Amino acid sequence: MLLKVKKLDLTAGGKPIVVINKADLEELGSKIPPRVKIRYKEKNFIAIPNVSEEIVRKGEIGIYHELFKIIGAKSGEEVSVEIASYPESLNFIKKKLRGKKLEYEEFYEIVKDVLEEKLTEGEITGFVVGLHAYGLSLEEAAALSKAMVETGERLNLGEKIVLDKHSIGGGIGDKTSILLVPIIASLGYKIPKTSSRAITSPAGTADKVETLMRVNLNIEEMRSVVKKTNGCLVWGGSLHLAPADDIFIKIEYPLEIDPLLFPSIMAKKMAVGANKLVIDIPTGRGAKIKTIGDAQILAKDFIKLGGYLGIETRVAITHGEQPIGYSVGAGLEAREALEILMGLKNVEDQIDKVTSIASILLEMVGVEDGKRIALEVLKSGKAERKFREIIAEQGGNPHVKPEDIPFGRFTYDFISETDGNILWIDSGGIGSVARAAGSPTDKGAGVYLYKKVGDSVKKGEKILTIFSNSEAKLERAIKILNEEAVVGYGGRRKMLIGKVCEGEIEKKRFILDR
Amino acid sequence: MLLKVKKLDLTAGGKPIVVINKADLEELGSKIPPRVKIRYKEKNFIAIPNVSEEIVRKGEIGIYHELFKIIGAKSGEEVSVEIASYPESLNFIKKKLRGKKLEYEEFYEIVKDVLEEKLTEGEITGFVVGLHAYGLSLEEAAALSKAMVETGERLNLGEKIVLDKHSIGGGIGDKTSILLVPIIASLGYKIPKTSSRAITSPAGTADKVETLMRVNLNIEEMRSVVKKTNGCLVWGGSLHLAPADDIFIKIEYPLEIDPLLFPSIMAKKMAVGANKLVIDIPTGRGAKIKTIGDAQILAKDFIKLGGYLGIETRVAITHGEQPIGYSVGAGLEAREALEILMGLKNVEDQIDKVTSIASILLEMVGVEDGKRIALEVLKSGKAERKFREIIAEQGGNPHVKPEDIPFGRFTYDFISETDGNILWIDSGGIGSVARAAGSPTDKGAGVYLYKKVGDSVKKGEKILTIFSNSEAKLERAIKILNEEAVVGYGGRRKMLIGKVCEGEIEKKRFILDR
Repeated sequence: MLLKVKKLDLTAGGKPIVVINKADLEELGSKIPPRVKIRYKEKNFIAIPNVSEEIVRKGEIGIYHELFKIIGAKSGEEVSVEIASYPESLNFIKKKLRGKKLEYEEFYEIVKDVLEEKLTEGEITGFVVGLHAYGLSLEEAAALSKAMVETGERLNLGEKIVLDKHSIGGGIGDKTSILLVPIIASLGYKIPKTSSRAITSPAGTADKVETLMRVNLNIEEMRSVVKKTNGCLVWGGSLHLAPADDIFIKIEYPLEIDPLLFPSIMAKKMAVGANKLVIDIPTGRGAKIKTIGDAQILAKDFIKLGGYLGIETRVAITHGEQPIGYSVGAGLEAREALEILMGLKNVEDQIDKVTSIASILLEMVGVEDGKRIALEVLKSGKAERKFREIIAEQGGNPHVKPEDIPFGRFTYDFISETDGNILWIDSGGIGSVARAAGSPTDKGAGVYLYKKVGDSVKKGEKILTIFSNSEAKLERAIKILNEEAVVGYGGRRKMLIGKVCEGEIEKKRFILDR
Repeated sequence: MLLKVKKLDLTAGGKPIVVINKADLEELGSKIPPRVKIRYKEKNFIAIPNVSEEIVRKGEIGIYHELFKIIGAKSGEEVSVEIASYPESLNFIKKKLRGKKLEYEEFYEIVKDVLEEKLTEGEITGFVVGLHAYGLSLEEAAALSKAMVETGERLNLGEKIVLDKHSIGGGIGDKTSILLVPIIASLGYKIPKTSSRAITSPAGTADKVETLMRVNLNIEEMRSVVKKTNGCLVWGGSLHLAPADDIFIKIEYPLEIDPLLFPSIMAKKMAVGANKLVIDIPTGRGAKIKTIGDAQILAKDFIKLGGYLGIETRVAITHGEQPIGYSVGAGLEAREALEILMGLKNVEDQIDKVTSIASILLEMVGVEDGKRIALEVLKSGKAERKFREIIAEQGGNPHVKPEDIPFGRFTYDFISETDGNILWIDSGGIGSVARAAGSPTDKGAGVYLYKKVGDSVKKGEKILTIFSNSEAKLERAIKILNEEAVVGYGGRRKMLIGKVCEGEIEKKRFILDR
């Protein structure tokens, strides 16, 4: 059936929706079919049909903004419309739902159809939940990773050795990536680092870096920065590496399942051409992975999967009990990273972490004394110079000073009411406080710690300060700090952590940052 | 935020969609949230927001037809709009996805939120696939059945004993329900029978009955018919018994999974107040259940589940190798049922089946010699008189004659090319042929069999005739008949069933009729 295009002033968050007149749909033989196929200039598009009797007249097809742009037909032009049949990939989803393993070609068809919107939200959910419930073997994870890479952009640096690093579960206050990239790049190795923005954490690496330079580079810009400086610090979201992952994440998130963890991470590493990779697994009470045993199981799977995909992979199991460094929040963390690179501040745990991870990467390229070398590069100012080079290439101010990133105007000091020791600082709790204070949008929002676990504290001394540019948000952050027992201090033998009275404790949502 | 209602000339197959101006959504703090909550006159409604800049101006909320009717606000009236939080029931879905069992209250919340459109398509799919992958214990099936009954309409006959029957997998050519209701009702027992329409089969009982009387009764009309005649033959779809099932079916169907089989069937039986139930499981090559062993497992589960729900349940495992009786197709089957009731035609297998099932029901109410009694009621014309009573009460012509339901104008005779025997008649294949010929919409479309399995056939003799009122549809039906080796005949020792040459054999879709 030929219908005349009518551009509609409507959007639906990316869904490909068209509006067809009731009479035309009836002629097509269906009340409302799940999908219609639109053909324009030899190309096919799949769309979800809505129905109208007036907005769209007989002989017309109204097209939502997003799809209108994709199809590229002008208003008044004719397109061919028919009821779409079930895609072949649906059979592979059903195969998984019968508990069977899938092959590369089958994953490829599914991922392609996900991206081309040929599968409905329900069908894609069937796939994701099927992977969750029936599991994904490492062979399948490798096949799915490859399929996700094939259907997205690739960096193609043309280098023999490309290093990379990924942290699972986004450590609160962790500035490792910001520091690692200039260290490794200043030593002459390629490290095309992509990072995510915060999902539930107060700040992803991309959010932090954004206070210093542009992060939404396209793939050509990224390639140019890496060619010139050996490194980069960009947001993965604008690069279309393994783009199907964004669609899978939207399904996983409300259901709190994460079956695509491995393919999601590894596909993005493959897409930038990485072949030497360190995976950082923060482990402990405040981290996603609670025990070292769990971390080791995960580590072995990553190493094996890396092997299937031609990526030499090593894993760093790191301490994840408390925030790393002293600052938490997008701007505050960028500031602290800059202070470390400039040698203005000695942040022991953070420096130990980044040099340890650098040494594992360096070991993989045959450098024996990596930790000492990394520390030297940091101390000598070589890493700082490289960082400012990258800032300049990514459109930031290469002469930026720490004080250019100001703390929020409104503050709250958390004061010790007794002499004693800091017993715990819950990473997740500090993250919630920083997020409530306004991070990552408010670049001055966050938490500054004066004490770390084990430090002694005197009555009246400040333990931490919350910063925000909004009084209301500060209030909310204070409430969380006090209600959730985020920080514990006192005598070392005091055993009562808190009293639970009435009121339900709201379960917190958690998803791995990828 | 208060917004003025604007009725939109748009429908989306029942989805509750609203259109909000871009500026207002930004003020609500979200680009496109998955759900918004609309409040009007103390009532809350959940809707999926789309975005516009022109069709809906700032300060307005455009509402799709379906939701507009439900909310009941007039154009220009103000409603309150805010971003909806995740519903509590989502936690129970996540619990199932962690492999845990759910309780009645949890199922109830999920089913309620499904009906109130508080859960997205993806979230509901997560639930259905979770049930499929992690399984549903009989206790859970009972709890979910109850939840589905609680959220729908109920018949409330106020009778102590209510009989019912359900067939799984819809036997091709099966007229048992049409015959059973008048037999049982004429003996003084209540049998408020609801039936489905065809999903993939050529005709559901409701489609067949519709050629003789109205089937889309509402619950009050159904009650009145049963009060007057003891029985009824109505379409379940218009009664809102366990209405959530319709939503679950839409998710199960494309994924070809069926985890809600038990709750779906039992909830509808509970809703009409049945407490003595026979489940018919057609078994054999052409049926959903292929082996007697599988049928026995299913049977035990039904009986146990019935026990949990206060429904005494017995199971008839019946022969499902070939079509039942001689006619397949909505009108053709109604005609044959009428002929059997009028004593005009002796259809042995069909009469044996209905009297066997009647005898099991009668046994449950203490009648010993049920099969003989059922046959007598059939032979004496007592069942026919009852049937005509029901036809009259359901708005049909009580004096209807078989020839009032004519065969289709275009015909094709399938002629034997050799002497021999009928070796097989594949039920599924005959179903596809009848459906392709136009059943259930074309009441004259279908297949008439002159022979059944084991009958001898002479060269040149008719084995079957296809009827249709459309030449194009007849062609398509003939093609299926010949390509899919639906009927086999010849010498008893011939072993080659068919040759497979090039071309893929299309996998047929199957879903249980409920």
